[in-house]
Amino acid sequence: MYSFANDYSEGACPKVLNALVETNDVQAAGYGQDLFCTAAAETIRKTVGNESVDVHFISGGTPCNVLAISLLRSYEAVICVESGHINTHETGAIEATGHKIITVKGKYGKITPAEIIEVVSNHPDEHMVKPKMVFISDATELGTIYRKSELKAIYETCRKLGLYLYLDGARLGNALVATGNDLTFKDICRYTDIFYIGGTKNGALIGEAMVIRNDDLKPYFRYLIKQHCAMLSKGRIIGVQFLALLEDSTYLDNAKNANIMAQAIKYIFKQYGIPMFIDSPTNQIFPVLENRLLEKIKTKYEVTEWGKFDKNHTIVRFVCSWATKKGDVQDFYNDLFTYMQNRTV
Amino acid sequence: MYSFANDYSEGACPKVLNALVETNDVQAAGYGQDLFCTAAAETIRKTVGNESVDVHFISGGTPCNVLAISLLRSYEAVICVESGHINTHETGAIEATGHKIITVKGKYGKITPAEIIEVVSNHPDEHMVKPKMVFISDATELGTIYRKSELKAIYETCRKLGLYLYLDGARLGNALVATGNDLTFKDICRYTDIFYIGGTKNGALIGEAMVIRNDDLKPYFRYLIKQHCAMLSKGRIIGVQFLALLEDSTYLDNAKNANIMAQAIKYIFKQYGIPMFIDSPTNQIFPVLENRLLEKIKTKYEVTEWGKFDKNHTIVRFVCSWATKKGDVQDFYNDLFTYMQNRTV
Amino acid sequence: MYSFANDYSEGACPKVLNALVETNDVQAAGYGQDLFCTAAAETIRKTVGNESVDVHFISGGTPCNVLAISLLRSYEAVICVESGHINTHETGAIEATGHKIITVKGKYGKITPAEIIEVVSNHPDEHMVKPKMVFISDATELGTIYRKSELKAIYETCRKLGLYLYLDGARLGNALVATGNDLTFKDICRYTDIFYIGGTKNGALIGEAMVIRNDDLKPYFRYLIKQHCAMLSKGRIIGVQFLALLEDSTYLDNAKNANIMAQAIKYIFKQYGIPMFIDSPTNQIFPVLENRLLEKIKTKYEVTEWGKFDKNHTIVRFVCSWATKKGDVQDFYNDLFTYMQNRTV
Amino acid sequence: MYSFANDYSEGACPKVLNALVETNDVQAAGYGQDLFCTAAAETIRKTVGNESVDVHFISGGTPCNVLAISLLRSYEAVICVESGHINTHETGAIEATGHKIITVKGKYGKITPAEIIEVVSNHPDEHMVKPKMVFISDATELGTIYRKSELKAIYETCRKLGLYLYLDGARLGNALVATGNDLTFKDICRYTDIFYIGGTKNGALIGEAMVIRNDDLKPYFRYLIKQHCAMLSKGRIIGVQFLALLEDSTYLDNAKNANIMAQAIKYIFKQYGIPMFIDSPTNQIFPVLENRLLEKIKTKYEVTEWGKFDKNHTIVRFVCSWATKKGDVQDFYNDLFTYMQNRTV
Repeated sequence: MYSFANDYSEGACPKVLNALVETNDVQAAGYGQDLFCTAAAETIRKTVGNESVDVHFISGGTPCNVLAISLLRSYEAVICVESGHINTHETGAIEATGHKIITVKGKYGKITPAEIIEVVSNHPDEHMVKPKMVFISDATELGTIYRKSELKAIYETCRKLGLYLYLDGARLGNALVATGNDLTFKDICRYTDIFYIGGTKNGALIGEAMVIRNDDLKPYFRYLIKQHCAMLSKGRIIGVQFLALLEDSTYLDNAKNANIMAQAIKYIFKQYGIPMFIDSPTNQIFPVLENRLLEKIKTKYEVTEWGKFDKNHTIVRFVCSWATKKGDVQDFYNDLFTYMQNRTV
Repeated sequence: MYSFANDYSEGACPKVLNALVETNDVQAAGYGQDLFCTAAAETIRKTVGNESVDVHFISGGTPCNVLAISLLRSYEAVICVESGHINTHETGAIEATGHKIITVKGKYGKITPAEIIEVVSNHPDEHMVKPKMVFISDATELGTIYRKSELKAIYETCRKLGLYLYLDGARLGNALVATGNDLTFKDICRYTDIFYIGGTKNGALIGEAMVIRNDDLKPYFRYLIKQHCAMLSKGRIIGVQFLALLEDSTYLDNAKNANIMAQAIKYIFKQYGIPMFIDSPTNQIFPVLENRLLEKIKTKYEVTEWGKFDKNHTIVRFVCSWATKKGDVQDFYNDLFTYMQNRTV
Repeated sequence: MYSFANDYSEGACPKVLNALVETNDVQAAGYGQDLFCTAAAETIRKTVGNESVDVHFISGGTPCNVLAISLLRSYEAVICVESGHINTHETGAIEATGHKIITVKGKYGKITPAEIIEVVSNHPDEHMVKPKMVFISDATELGTIYRKSELKAIYETCRKLGLYLYLDGARLGNALVATGNDLTFKDICRYTDIFYIGGTKNGALIGEAMVIRNDDLKPYFRYLIKQHCAMLSKGRIIGVQFLALLEDSTYLDNAKNANIMAQAIKYIFKQYGIPMFIDSPTNQIFPVLENRLLEKIKTKYEVTEWGKFDKNHTIVRFVCSWATKKGDVQDFYNDLFTYMQNRTV
Repeated sequence: MYSFANDYSEGACPKVLNALVETNDVQAAGYGQDLFCTAAAETIRKTVGNESVDVHFISGGTPCNVLAISLLRSYEAVICVESGHINTHETGAIEATGHKIITVKGKYGKITPAEIIEVVSNHPDEHMVKPKMVFISDATELGTIYRKSELKAIYETCRKLGLYLYLDGARLGNALVATGNDLTFKDICRYTDIFYIGGTKNGALIGEAMVIRNDDLKPYFRYLIKQHCAMLSKGRIIGVQFLALLEDSTYLDNAKNANIMAQAIKYIFKQYGIPMFIDSPTNQIFPVLENRLLEKIKTKYEVTEWGKFDKNHTIVRFVCSWATKKGDVQDFYNDLFTYMQNRTV
């Protein structure tokens, strides 16, 4: 059984694992105030091209989202697309901190300035929540990516309307190295108020790096981290990992491998005329499979059933990661060939 | 500079680190539903002598406390001693989930049945919160431990009053191997409704193991873990570590080393007639030091200033861990000798 | 200037006001535990045909909604139609208590069993909130009403799925006396788990009566009332009012007057061929008015602009109440005649 | 049976009741944005001698406290004395909005600058909550009052430490007219950041007036009122009542009557050598009564048992209000005479 179910099926990528082993015996201060975190934060400041951002290392993606949104006042709300992770897969963690999520349809998992403007104009007074933040992710939940012009337009809309723009970068690496991408780390920093660089899904054992550019959002952030259960005693382990990932090209290399492998699988499907539910250029692809074919695949591969397409077809998600090897994809190619051969028409 | 500041200054103990490395490339399901977590849970069920407990792996100690207390209804409150970690060092995380902490004085960091009874009798109606849980820790924040008779009495008081008893076991290992201790893992499980076995402070890189014995508290606990930011995508890493710690005597051995080293330092102080603020038998000791001596110590050692004793004296905390070596204590012995020699009287 | 903007523009209806004056000097216990509240609760038990329901007097409609939903566990969610009051006009009060609202489209402001079933099937695991309550209102926000068969079907769906059904009865009187209604107070009680009888919008100065039929929801409800700021020191004043409203036909008579007056205005509009946005049989009507006509109306009448219909037309809400007099409607009839006469075609 | 149990046993004082009746049929805007609230706010601005304060009318005392404290960020805490209403009698309403209450001993129900300073110095970092507001009440829960010099010192301490000072004025009238008081409405406004003028306990049927002087606390306050269930649809009724109370001396006259009656009872007790638990100059007095005497009193009078004094004595609370008549006190005088005569020694 091989799993294409997600990009967190293995532990850490070799370089990260090695770094953890090598630094293991060094004594370091607790709670993310150690030399490794300090060095990693400095590396991130260089990476995003901004010396004055605040960097915090956080235990996971949901915590990052909770933290960013908990910067709001209790009556302030966050806007996101219906498929947004905070709206669907965080067990109400955002609402549990008291904040309403206002959803819009979006397009291919992405929000548009027009949708933001409409939400704000529909929330004029104190009988409604006050929209104050826009949540986006890049890559999105559907594997799609934002173009620079799109991100810039959203950011400028936010500024005009007095909203903060927060970007969930759980799969930011996959976005930045995708075919068609024209954004850089520096752009991401420039056109958001706060965002995070995902570690867990791109080679780290655990941890994400929150980057705060907007000065209004900086004060007392560590209080929020601690209060929201996202501060590790041995915070050093996240610093160590991000240093390993970002001091050279490891972070982007990991993402490239993930994208290339997923796109290879997409290509394999396309050869058989199998359509994609959405044409994503990153490490998640969404073929629409005949149920009979899906059953065969599931005898040897773990994948995620994303939704029913029609009576006989299912939308399936395949995810690759830094750990996916050429051989794994080759095996799948061979198996699919067999399945297709034996197909009764 | 050597740190006696806490028991989480290093990474993982060798056996744990090794286990992480060895299992790194195995594909495993996410969110703590993998083979390692399953095996570790089974090991814990054996350790605590109860096949029907629920076991969950949690990202840290504050999350554990938040989760246990979030089992309460919004108007229900938790009782603890003033020095309780939830009351002092969790940035209001408990209150942030909506629950009031009712404090009592306690004695040597420990709560008494009489205090519990008094709180309940002082909260008779709906204009006040309803006490519903008692929070204790073993070892306590002051390094002291509960005797079996004490724990049993507290538990029976709780049962009589309809309260849940929750035990914070961040330093449970240190308690169970302390001189004077007569409790076992099985007793801890028998005389509480829910408790956690601490990993982070006893050799793990990250993670704690929550054990739920009371059936009323079991349902839907994973929803709470996810909602409160305490579920890891790569949950496997906590399972791997607890398996390594508990499949043999590593967990208790780690704790023993920590206690022995701390008690050795206590003995060194006592030789010079330096009194302890509290006589704790575990891995935290609290000498009352002359400020001039403290200043000298701080030139080579990191320690925690626990509080002012009087104008000329400070209560200081020294903590040892699985990582503290005989040589470290020997060095301190030598340095202290020098400081004491040169003391101007 | 005359206001058709809402049904709470005046104080109390004469009988209620009189009751407040007459009982003013009687000494009574605080917090709703007085003789008036006791008597009113008894009257309500008879009205709803169930001697064992719990009755609580609450300071307002939003508090009622918050209280009902705060009966849920933190990870449990409430389902309602997009136009539901809790989703649109309560400043995130539900989310502020930690609960997610899952919205469905609905039809004419009403939810369908199919929508409920779909939500539940889309929320299978702990990465999502757990749907646990359905929120409906009768009359709805759009003035429409539920048929007995509809309410019964929703209730049975809820039971089958383990959901609570909560009914917001801010305008319950208006529903129960509407043309086409076949529900009674007894049906409302039989086919919901918890609901409230609205006072403020039907002749009371302040206050609503929460009725809890499901035994699971009864315990400790007064703790929630107090905690959520909905308990009045002089709780007596709500008891006094509900006694006055429900000891005879005053409550239903008030609602009848409101409905008749609103329907009369609807009839007036229909005579001029002016369409309704939705054909509601209660005290709220929603004509689609030419903007020029609306401007004229607004010179003498306060109304609510509900939304834009198209470039030249606006959806407008007219509301009548127990206080609306025949003469007020007659005046509007006359004014509208004048406006329509002078219309430039 | 006559009740001295509290100061909200009757409805409204005659002038307030009359104002409600007289304005009942006037149409007015909802949610406290009506002409009566506007006029009452203007009257309050004059009363407190500050034209730029924001005034909001709130449904009750607990809501006021919740609102003031919900101005804080989630990790910020409020300091109050142990006997503070928010700490003891609000069913955890403050914690339910996520905030920790840090208690200090206080003296006679009053906080001291030294206590505030100590709390702040004990909360230095992000592992603890950040103290940000001080809560006081005048009169206090024990009926005592603040001297001008005391309030000023507390306020200046708060300013120096960056804390907001909030004053709960549920019984502010009783404080301002007490013997020994040297504070005025203007002083209260000058030496706090936010406070409320209590209505319910001083002649209103319902409602309190929140006054915000500090500009930082003004924005978006109406969002909080709505979200926290404290905004009435017929908000007018609070405006009407405060206008009636404050447009002339009614408010202070009500309080004077309450104080005089309570002090008269105190004098009666003192004649028999019965001591007071605390010597309060307002409308609450706390005699220490022999249990046998208390039992006799309870055959004809409702009073509150405040606490056990010793085996044979109980601390009892007598409260008077605007509604207490000379005759009521005279009756009690006569009854006490009888009880004392028949006393077996």
